[in-house]
Amino acid sequence: MSVVLPDASEADLDGLDPAHAARVRDSWSRQALLATLGARLLRVGPGIAEIELPVSPHVSQQHGFVHAGAVSTIADTACGYAALTTMDADSAVLTAEFKINLMAPAAGERLVARARVIRSGRTLTVALCEVEAEAGGTRKTVALMTATLASVRGKGLSG
Amino acid sequence: MSVVLPDASEADLDGLDPAHAARVRDSWSRQALLATLGARLLRVGPGIAEIELPVSPHVSQQHGFVHAGAVSTIADTACGYAALTTMDADSAVLTAEFKINLMAPAAGERLVARARVIRSGRTLTVALCEVEAEAGGTRKTVALMTATLASVRGKGLSG
Amino acid sequence: MSVVLPDASEADLDGLDPAHAARVRDSWSRQALLATLGARLLRVGPGIAEIELPVSPHVSQQHGFVHAGAVSTIADTACGYAALTTMDADSAVLTAEFKINLMAPAAGERLVARARVIRSGRTLTVALCEVEAEAGGTRKTVALMTATLASVRGKGLSG
Amino acid sequence: MSVVLPDASEADLDGLDPAHAARVRDSWSRQALLATLGARLLRVGPGIAEIELPVSPHVSQQHGFVHAGAVSTIADTACGYAALTTMDADSAVLTAEFKINLMAPAAGERLVARARVIRSGRTLTVALCEVEAEAGGTRKTVALMTATLASVRGKGLSG
Repeated sequence: MSVVLPDASEADLDGLDPAHAARVRDSWSRQALLATLGARLLRVGPGIAEIELPVSPHVSQQHGFVHAGAVSTIADTACGYAALTTMDADSAVLTAEFKINLMAPAAGERLVARARVIRSGRTLTVALCEVEAEAGGTRKTVALMTATLASVRGKGLSG
Repeated sequence: MSVVLPDASEADLDGLDPAHAARVRDSWSRQALLATLGARLLRVGPGIAEIELPVSPHVSQQHGFVHAGAVSTIADTACGYAALTTMDADSAVLTAEFKINLMAPAAGERLVARARVIRSGRTLTVALCEVEAEAGGTRKTVALMTATLASVRGKGLSG
Repeated sequence: MSVVLPDASEADLDGLDPAHAARVRDSWSRQALLATLGARLLRVGPGIAEIELPVSPHVSQQHGFVHAGAVSTIADTACGYAALTTMDADSAVLTAEFKINLMAPAAGERLVARARVIRSGRTLTVALCEVEAEAGGTRKTVALMTATLASVRGKGLSG
Repeated sequence: MSVVLPDASEADLDGLDPAHAARVRDSWSRQALLATLGARLLRVGPGIAEIELPVSPHVSQQHGFVHAGAVSTIADTACGYAALTTMDADSAVLTAEFKINLMAPAAGERLVARARVIRSGRTLTVALCEVEAEAGGTRKTVALMTATLASVRGKGLSG
């Protein structure tokens, strides 16, 4: 299977300074799994990020709902970009851990993960993310994630 | 994109009674996300399950490691099948929550998630899963998950 | 050591119907650990609860901060009462799991845990709790918890 | 209330080198909350720790079981000491986060938390802890915790 790479050209990065916006664009363009799932970066601002996942058969689990792993992928990634905006330009971000509560079956036309930084530290950043499912004009919160993101310096990683 | 469905024909289900083995096969065949990622069901026995994910570019994150979301997908699914084997034949299994610690970058040739049930209850089951990365004949534990699985009855779900 | 039992006589339960208010009072009066720690119930309303812990030497850890276990105790209990207000009168509430991020050392004059229900289901309820430390008139968020509460019926438990 | 401080004089520290044993003894002697609850340090060795909590009325919740906060306190502390043994002599240990699954009511004569390090890193260490309840000669696993411990240097903290 050829790898499709995502691009952030449609994302709203207006709230970011140019250096952080460039880093987000560059990092997103290497997020192959997100392209595999069909996710789109909607918006990144200081301490916040939003990612959309259109609901499609190839991200589903055995009952036809979106698989918890796909829900987690967009929530974890949104937490990562929200955290990245609060870090120095020479830091890369890695997820140390996350926990997700899956509160309702994820179904509808699309999911949107909205993350925000709760506390930003030099080494560890904590973010919170809600995932909503949109169906027929209504929204329902289907998942809630808290994540710890580690900033990594000097290991040859970027973004 | 056409949806590729996975099959469990190569999985070792020898430890299961025929009814549970049939349910696992049927359920796995509808796990579209797992096929999208390229995961394979290796083994399901009473209270245990193993899933493999070959490392490939289309499941990677921005630094070239396997994305935490893909790691989570195989670990969560392994927890689900481990739990399913301890449930009644009329129960479906849904993940209520999981937490994953990502302890080292996931790289190498393949990942293997090995889950086991820690406690099986009528409504809630708790499972633990370790994910190992194999590279050049060596193994390294890269992630640790604990999950709560809910058994759901009478909602028209199976597996 | 003689057991001191807490009382909820100073708590603001004005937002609750009389039946739920009576259940909260009765339940709190049996929360011996909360009395041992010196915690006070501040407020319970529909889907929300607040608990205070004065900072004192006997709840500290090795560096003189409030021990993560004491922080967890008030946060978990606040999640429990927030959840209880959304349950039927014949349900008892038990914590199935929680996760807490400890974002800054817990120090100052007092901690306040503020919980709210994110989703209420027949069997499982998810709550979110922030814990703030107050010192010299300033507030700082020191911990963030997500919890799954199970409603239990017909086991002879109340509250 | 006067603060009772714990001591580790009865703990088995035989597996530790003298420097780590001294640090554990010194750290434990300042764990006021553990003394408040009545917990005892049973054993600390390389990468492992065990803490006992006798079941008593003053650590209970509203149904008479041991409160989840008390269960968490011994499990978190056991994770901390297990991690401390893998750190440099100039590091202090702080809990960054933990998640606990409460799998059965905690009752009986005593609880024992047994923690072990799963991965030790320079900054972050991951530990796993099982809590067993002992009643009438039988043991039952009542809780499972995973924790991330941060090693902190140069902040004037010890142990």
